[in-house]
Amino acid sequence: MKQIREILVDLYGCEADLDNVDLLISTLRAASEQMGSQIVKVTSHKFSPTGTTVFIILAETHMSIHTWPESKYAALDIFICDEKINPEIGWKTVKDALKPTSFKIHEMTRNIP
Amino acid sequence: MKQIREILVDLYGCEADLDNVDLLISTLRAASEQMGSQIVKVTSHKFSPTGTTVFIILAETHMSIHTWPESKYAALDIFICDEKINPEIGWKTVKDALKPTSFKIHEMTRNIP
Repeated sequence: MKQIREILVDLYGCEADLDNVDLLISTLRAASEQMGSQIVKVTSHKFSPTGTTVFIILAETHMSIHTWPESKYAALDIFICDEKINPEIGWKTVKDALKPTSFKIHEMTRNIP
Repeated sequence: MKQIREILVDLYGCEADLDNVDLLISTLRAASEQMGSQIVKVTSHKFSPTGTTVFIILAETHMSIHTWPESKYAALDIFICDEKINPEIGWKTVKDALKPTSFKIHEMTRNIP
């Protein structure tokens, strides 16, 4: 039995520019590096007039972020299937970069038979 | 206040070929169509020797699936920020295509201020 950990975070009142795709990509890249995970592919989309999505496929599953800059809100998911990698380290990197004034964390585990 | 619904499903004992990326992409495309959501971008990766990831950016947020074919297991996330779109319709389409013998659903809501 292998365990997957998924951290889903609501970030409220972010001080960073949530419409800046380059900032979001570099933030998730840094989070991946800090966790010691391996990036396989990065994809993103900038919505019009506002809002972004960044998704990173990791060798150890994924990270995604969706932003609503007009509400200073972002939804982050970090989904990790390797027990040696701690998704909370990635979350800390994102928190330091996006500077939310408050946040809400949901955590769940999934079991691979 | 806008509400996001996220459905996270563990699919066990899938009868479908979980190493078939084309099948997974067409299944998520069909799920998106059935829900009435709009596909923005599709990305995927086939791991070696086995395992796949498919991610679809929707105008209404995202769908992702990760598979462990050797365990007949898949982890599906459907993340929808439009109250007119029902993620359970998408899940039903995936269930019909991948034919799990059992599954476990986690549901959560997130609030955009």
